[in-house]
Amino acid sequence: MAEPVVTLAHGGGGASTRQLLRDILLPLLDPAHALHLEDAALLPAAAGSPAWAITTDGFTVRPLFFPGGDIGKLAVCGTVNDLAMRGARPEVLTVSMVLEEGLPLGTLERVVASMRATLDAVGAVVVAGDTKVVERGRGDGMFLSMSGLGKVQVSPPPAAFRAQPGDQVLINGPIGDHGIAVLAARENLGFSVAVESDCAPLWSLVETMLSAGGPDVHVLRDPTRGGLAAALNEIAADSRVGVIIREADLTVTAGVRGACDLLGFDPLTIANEGKVVAFVAPRQATAVLEAMRAHPLGRGSAVIGEVITDSPGRVLLETDLGTRRLVDMPGGELLPRIC
Amino acid sequence: MAEPVVTLAHGGGGASTRQLLRDILLPLLDPAHALHLEDAALLPAAAGSPAWAITTDGFTVRPLFFPGGDIGKLAVCGTVNDLAMRGARPEVLTVSMVLEEGLPLGTLERVVASMRATLDAVGAVVVAGDTKVVERGRGDGMFLSMSGLGKVQVSPPPAAFRAQPGDQVLINGPIGDHGIAVLAARENLGFSVAVESDCAPLWSLVETMLSAGGPDVHVLRDPTRGGLAAALNEIAADSRVGVIIREADLTVTAGVRGACDLLGFDPLTIANEGKVVAFVAPRQATAVLEAMRAHPLGRGSAVIGEVITDSPGRVLLETDLGTRRLVDMPGGELLPRIC
Repeated sequence: MAEPVVTLAHGGGGASTRQLLRDILLPLLDPAHALHLEDAALLPAAAGSPAWAITTDGFTVRPLFFPGGDIGKLAVCGTVNDLAMRGARPEVLTVSMVLEEGLPLGTLERVVASMRATLDAVGAVVVAGDTKVVERGRGDGMFLSMSGLGKVQVSPPPAAFRAQPGDQVLINGPIGDHGIAVLAARENLGFSVAVESDCAPLWSLVETMLSAGGPDVHVLRDPTRGGLAAALNEIAADSRVGVIIREADLTVTAGVRGACDLLGFDPLTIANEGKVVAFVAPRQATAVLEAMRAHPLGRGSAVIGEVITDSPGRVLLETDLGTRRLVDMPGGELLPRIC
Repeated sequence: MAEPVVTLAHGGGGASTRQLLRDILLPLLDPAHALHLEDAALLPAAAGSPAWAITTDGFTVRPLFFPGGDIGKLAVCGTVNDLAMRGARPEVLTVSMVLEEGLPLGTLERVVASMRATLDAVGAVVVAGDTKVVERGRGDGMFLSMSGLGKVQVSPPPAAFRAQPGDQVLINGPIGDHGIAVLAARENLGFSVAVESDCAPLWSLVETMLSAGGPDVHVLRDPTRGGLAAALNEIAADSRVGVIIREADLTVTAGVRGACDLLGFDPLTIANEGKVVAFVAPRQATAVLEAMRAHPLGRGSAVIGEVITDSPGRVLLETDLGTRRLVDMPGGELLPRIC
């Protein structure tokens, strides 16, 4: 019998990733933080002071540079966005680099400059770092890991278990750009599309949303690996509610649509790096939507669906034809190394 | 002209590592934290509450398992020890994994179990994690990055710039075991020695040292990459003092001595993962030494030298023959991937 091994599917962000977590990795986690898997964990704070949110992420995107971003910008955005999804203002980051022998120093300099520029845009600082070098052929240029700390600005903080029937589901623009931009940038794919990654730091957008909606912003999540399908399935499961989204209200750019048709992908499963999905109580949904549309990163915002009482734990898509289909948690290999 | 590239020497922890930091990586760091490179950075705290220390490290040790430890135990110890060196009790850790396709799941399980056991021994918890998978041949089994947060237990906290003339230099046992144990575990070296890594979490030892010496414990550092030579050179430079150590007072086990003789290494440059070097004001040096010797990880503790007023920024070794030689910052490739 073949020995079970790590597969690319384990890194895809879908069902296999969750299985690896459940079977092997969760025993590592503090039980208090293993119950609900959020984008960032919360640390208890002294009475009267805001809680800290803490997060960590690895970045192995290939190629290192792609239209709309690079591994450095992606790492800072990914870390900052995980904090923002818990309503936390990003303050302090750390970075750990694994470099492959032979990586041009000029490449490293470009990545560092890109991280620096993104940090400045966010107003966060890196306070600690580490660098390791592995032999040629035992790495792939560079891998980054970043951790981040931020202070939670709203109480209770948004969480994937707080969705309630009636909540309106909002998103700040079209889906799938990041995954398709990275895929198209890989030389061996034999096609090119004019798609740019949406990679962006989302804290300032989220800040305006929280100002408008306060604690009525029940859930925030950035639909990265596994795309909108994975994010919505996680929220539906954690909140034990049904979620319905309307195909007619979802935006997919022509480039993403064309690439997905060509390759047989569903845009709902493709990663984004500058999108936030919000679940907002109906009484504040319009205010939050208007705040989003007034922000440079939210001009294409829309209400795309709502939380329903039936079908708990499931995500449904109302198609343009008026039929409903189940949106599954993505299962297979998906797109490896898009973040 | 050849394009400058990353070399194994850049990861060795010696002069090349410092040059890479200075030339390329330091612009990433917040200027407030770039002046002195400590094992962990301190975050400002509200009045009356202890400061947080924060650290991050990557782990690329090869092989993954070696006598005395494995990459999981090493990662937890390395992170915890960096916090301890700032007088901080480790509390909260995060882990980011980069797995290579084909890694046996059983290997991952063994590493996770080892991390779990070390966490329990320390009393710290992992609150956030992330896993990425790279294609076969583009990684090397597994790389880990960990970040850690701890609360500083002494004021002012130990720091590499606080060494003062007259300070006694203490260490808790023999040097070089970790680097030689890992090296010997690599199949292609053609020799084997009965050396076990000293890999151990040092917080409880450091806690007893701080109880005994309080703020008179001026500097703590774990001599990892670059060994005791790098650690002492960093302290001498940051404190602008001279340091003299006595060969007669240093312990090197027979196995480490033999391997170093065979391979032409200086034990002073070989990594340790369970050692702490302390610079203590003379009036408390005996109390701290006694506290160390009473602890299971400090039975072999000794005073090995002191801080002198001449030769600022330099480290001297008084040899068994009574001569003095300069101990340089290690410069070359050293031992790659020992942590």
